[in-house]
Amino acid sequence: MANDIPDIVIGRLPIYLRALVYMDEEGDKVTTSSQELGSRLGISSAQIRKDLSHFGEFGKQGTGYHIKYLIEQLRQILHLEHDWPVVLVGAGYLGHALAHYQGFKHRGFHINWIFDNNPDKIGIQMNNMEVRDIRELDDLVRREEVQMAIIAVPASAAQNIADMLVEAGIKSILSYAPINLKAPAGVQVRYSDPVILLQRMTYYLEP
Amino acid sequence: MANDIPDIVIGRLPIYLRALVYMDEEGDKVTTSSQELGSRLGISSAQIRKDLSHFGEFGKQGTGYHIKYLIEQLRQILHLEHDWPVVLVGAGYLGHALAHYQGFKHRGFHINWIFDNNPDKIGIQMNNMEVRDIRELDDLVRREEVQMAIIAVPASAAQNIADMLVEAGIKSILSYAPINLKAPAGVQVRYSDPVILLQRMTYYLEP
Repeated sequence: MANDIPDIVIGRLPIYLRALVYMDEEGDKVTTSSQELGSRLGISSAQIRKDLSHFGEFGKQGTGYHIKYLIEQLRQILHLEHDWPVVLVGAGYLGHALAHYQGFKHRGFHINWIFDNNPDKIGIQMNNMEVRDIRELDDLVRREEVQMAIIAVPASAAQNIADMLVEAGIKSILSYAPINLKAPAGVQVRYSDPVILLQRMTYYLEP
Repeated sequence: MANDIPDIVIGRLPIYLRALVYMDEEGDKVTTSSQELGSRLGISSAQIRKDLSHFGEFGKQGTGYHIKYLIEQLRQILHLEHDWPVVLVGAGYLGHALAHYQGFKHRGFHINWIFDNNPDKIGIQMNNMEVRDIRELDDLVRREEVQMAIIAVPASAAQNIADMLVEAGIKSILSYAPINLKAPAGVQVRYSDPVILLQRMTYYLEP
């Protein structure tokens, strides 16, 4: 695995993939160019060509990128050829929204299990899954060899949950809690943080 | 306003700001360096220095950046010296989670109004706000001169809501719906998409 590629480059590949899938769904063209992709995304065409060149030769001078082919290649690079099972912790409002989120479909992920520690929530159904007791998490993650988890619990509980997930063998955590989590080397943590997206926009507004 | 600065640079400033605020809260140091900031974020120190140099001279050779000063400067650059009022559309599970989200506090945003079109939701209280009828949105946005909105409705309704928001004068939209929205030039749209964050992590996992 080419781990010398900067993570910031890896971070742009899913953005390219999403834009290409939208183009493919629009259905009015078979090929695209780094210029077209760049103008949709607000990223320079040179950056896109440079990013993709880390992984091989995907386009041809003059004809550009074949959309479906580049989608397949990006899915392969990002290990999305098969669905990844995901554990969701937190069956509150946010957990409920995530359990029903339509955006996971066909994009590589499937929430297979939901956990909570609240006796009022354990046992209820969410999108055809039963909410499980958090005390069963360790066993299940080990048995099913789950590598990915989403944390949707309050900030005050998030570090505890992260520690439990790491202990059970989880390697990648997406957290919605607005705190900075500590995790050992070898465990990736990413944050869904609406403020980061809002602050990027206020730069362009007049207060 | 220096609008010739690449948007991708603007997009990193909130990430620097968040890391600096965490450092400041940890309270064990007064200054930091581009190396230290970079190693926390997985971004090269050269990139950080280059990004910041677009806006002036914030650090000194040898002593680095004064954390509180750089926080203030970034807040000023991003127009975060005063809170931005935000309209939230959608009072379902996700809307409820956003209305109660603790991560907005002291970071420049305040959800002041929530709208929905469901008669069962209009009138209920969410975090001390009454859910309003979507038919009142246009008047309110114009009267209060609101510039920012968050869309938390199902994908099937999101484009309609975006059109209404744009018509009323909204300039920046953060959407949680898993579809690509069309908006006129001059209106910014950003997407909260958990899949983008998950796909960035699967690159490093063995399937």
